[in-house]
Amino acid sequence: MDSQIQGLKFDAHGLIPAIIQDAASREVLMMAWMNAESVALTVSTGKTHFFSRSRNQLWLKGESSGHTQTVRSLRTDCDKDVLLIEVTQEGAACHDGYYSCFYRKHALGQPDWKTDGKLIFDPKTVYHKA
Amino acid sequence: MDSQIQGLKFDAHGLIPAIIQDAASREVLMMAWMNAESVALTVSTGKTHFFSRSRNQLWLKGESSGHTQTVRSLRTDCDKDVLLIEVTQEGAACHDGYYSCFYRKHALGQPDWKTDGKLIFDPKTVYHKA
Repeated sequence: MDSQIQGLKFDAHGLIPAIIQDAASREVLMMAWMNAESVALTVSTGKTHFFSRSRNQLWLKGESSGHTQTVRSLRTDCDKDVLLIEVTQEGAACHDGYYSCFYRKHALGQPDWKTDGKLIFDPKTVYHKA
Repeated sequence: MDSQIQGLKFDAHGLIPAIIQDAASREVLMMAWMNAESVALTVSTGKTHFFSRSRNQLWLKGESSGHTQTVRSLRTDCDKDVLLIEVTQEGAACHDGYYSCFYRKHALGQPDWKTDGKLIFDPKTVYHKA
């Protein structure tokens, strides 16, 4: 692991939030958590790897769907406690089938969020649950 | 507080991460934490308000520096546990004087992060510490 990654500030659970942004359109695609190992793997393989807090395990983004993210640049902020990663997205980032996970827009005075995003695939045809 | 904000998933500390993006250039400026009250204030005033975990208090972004953020849109993700807020930034987002907090870029094989960002102001002239 390089000294830059070692200098990051991970939280009490050993995690750091990673914001994923489309390198071309600059659309923010998702935010997920990384531990030191997943940051190192993301750098060494050039594909984003995260740490799932619910499953308590490392995962390669796209391992089920094929919708991997190829890293174009990796940045950290002034406090070194958040990552910003520019990627080229294969397929779509969101497991709900949208290109970005941020497909819900606040609609003033309405009872619910407005759906506002590019639907790329039908989740039923991508994730086969046996 | 509207039902959309009530439907957000705050963590065990009552907080949700908020990614702040420049509405014009789509540059990601910062990530900070909000509690339900700061989300509601952000919506009602149109200026971003965060919750400081270190100071344990609500703060208006720009209250010391004048570098406020005017909200253009507010989104949440598929899990409703992250916010993405597009803003028009006054001055600069980073207290280090850079337009974006993400002014450190990973440089493969180097001992330290490369500084790569637009320096807008000298922090010494903006923050007067008595």
